[in-house]
Amino acid sequence: MKKKRVATKAGKVERGKKIALQRTVGKRRTAAHLKYLAWNDVEREELNPLLYRQLIVGHEVMLARILLKKGCIVPWHSHVNEQLSSIFEGALKFWIDGQEIVVKAGEVLVIPPNMPHKAEALEDTLAIDTFHPPREDWINKTDTYLRK
Amino acid sequence: MKKKRVATKAGKVERGKKIALQRTVGKRRTAAHLKYLAWNDVEREELNPLLYRQLIVGHEVMLARILLKKGCIVPWHSHVNEQLSSIFEGALKFWIDGQEIVVKAGEVLVIPPNMPHKAEALEDTLAIDTFHPPREDWINKTDTYLRK
Repeated sequence: MKKKRVATKAGKVERGKKIALQRTVGKRRTAAHLKYLAWNDVEREELNPLLYRQLIVGHEVMLARILLKKGCIVPWHSHVNEQLSSIFEGALKFWIDGQEIVVKAGEVLVIPPNMPHKAEALEDTLAIDTFHPPREDWINKTDTYLRK
Repeated sequence: MKKKRVATKAGKVERGKKIALQRTVGKRRTAAHLKYLAWNDVEREELNPLLYRQLIVGHEVMLARILLKKGCIVPWHSHVNEQLSSIFEGALKFWIDGQEIVVKAGEVLVIPPNMPHKAEALEDTLAIDTFHPPREDWINKTDTYLRK
């Protein structure tokens, strides 16, 4: 049986394969400016019933505060953006670079650009992911790989 | 009376004036690579009796976990690095862009490159500052403006 191929705005997704997301970087349109924000006032987006996300977007850096309910799976993907995943509550298991790494509260995973990874929340997990540059696919909501 | 001038490795400091720090950006020497770290295992540096700091350094982004005891003052300075200050405990008062802003737990201040700022901890405060690019003066410990 042929593998099903699904084309998305964020890139091409082939079932069961690692995917390299496209259009995760855009041209910053505005000058950098001072922002003062409370996480509680930032829109909380539901991507799917197990995955919620808030964004604070700087000029060259973006913070994403992410709630992953137990069992939430982030499928294989990669992006040109450098990613630092800081876990504050719970435990997030990563498959990355041939390893399985469980990142727990108080721990940080530094993921280089273009390194494929998959993740699963072993418990309800609160993370803050830092990206450079900001993830345009998250800002523009073209990240269909997460919306299932 | 003439103002006293103090030359430092990190730049020129003129008493009571806003200072632009130099050498806060360096050439990244190594390729980006995967890192898995626990904050509890990262060296905690005492800059002065009111200021403690830990660093997790990525390729283009750096996280600094900072403990400021009540009364700690970070003197006027600016740097080319974009800074996102996330407060997790306590309250940090900033003087910036003609405003006074008290950033409390659960809040974030996004500081553009080259914007002078000063800060004072109104309570014992735990912050994670994100910088792009990484602060070379912090990595190389040439940040004498903080070591008083």
